[in-house]
Amino acid sequence: MIILGLDPSLAATGWGVIRSSGSQLSYVASGTIKPPARGEMPARLSALFAAVSNVIAAQRPQAAACEEVFSNKNPQSTLKLGQARGAVLAAVGAAGLACAEYAPRLVKKALVGGGAAEKRQVHAMVERLLPGAAPGTLDASDALAVAICHANIAASQRLVMHA
Amino acid sequence: MIILGLDPSLAATGWGVIRSSGSQLSYVASGTIKPPARGEMPARLSALFAAVSNVIAAQRPQAAACEEVFSNKNPQSTLKLGQARGAVLAAVGAAGLACAEYAPRLVKKALVGGGAAEKRQVHAMVERLLPGAAPGTLDASDALAVAICHANIAASQRLVMHA
Repeated sequence: MIILGLDPSLAATGWGVIRSSGSQLSYVASGTIKPPARGEMPARLSALFAAVSNVIAAQRPQAAACEEVFSNKNPQSTLKLGQARGAVLAAVGAAGLACAEYAPRLVKKALVGGGAAEKRQVHAMVERLLPGAAPGTLDASDALAVAICHANIAASQRLVMHA
Repeated sequence: MIILGLDPSLAATGWGVIRSSGSQLSYVASGTIKPPARGEMPARLSALFAAVSNVIAAQRPQAAACEEVFSNKNPQSTLKLGQARGAVLAAVGAAGLACAEYAPRLVKKALVGGGAAEKRQVHAMVERLLPGAAPGTLDASDALAVAICHANIAASQRLVMHA
């Protein structure tokens, strides 16, 4: 299964694609989408929508996953993040995909074994679990992490179903 | 000028199109977009994106406007509203349009003369200012209200520029 992980934000949306077969994971591609930092919000959001659509068209993932948001920041940041997520998820939906959501603690736990891991620990673990992966940014690394989490959980669900 | 007013929300996004020439306003069309109430968020948001794109393709507005959001509700509602706005604004941007934003108080004041007007007063005023308008819902009526606000402010800006 080809899995697309996403870490949506207006400043820099990370994405990462992995291939999972059984418990084997391999790195496919990753990157960071940076919509124009200035200008009108509709233009910035449509650039984000278009870039995510292009990634999906090029990589043809069969599943997508992102982190759940716990919005305890200030309301204006939450609104902004919501708008970026809206553009990203609309592109996912337009490609006929759903997007599994995982709590950030669960993603960290799936990778590092503890929910309070730091970003750099997650980054190091992503590179260890996916030989050849070169996520240029922490955003891309976070996106690969949630893709790995989805692969592991999907694999363990299959085990349960076949038990 | 043909102006599209929008009142984005995941449950029901109101839209309204008016034509303004000088201080003359006329009603063109309005409606309410209801994405599927259930199902995966990406599918709901892409349905919203597609429906707004269809309205724009059919009505060919030259400008768009919506209300500013003051997000003092609970964070989860703000996030949800942000996602709906993200899908709507991405569709506006994909059509090459910007979206002017007006504070809700300003929209009410532009129509009813007071910022604390109730929805029904705004509704009645929209029907009075736009003969022939039949906004079926309060959402459509709110969308027409913000379009009227934009027309009035654009007209007064032209007056200032030419003074």
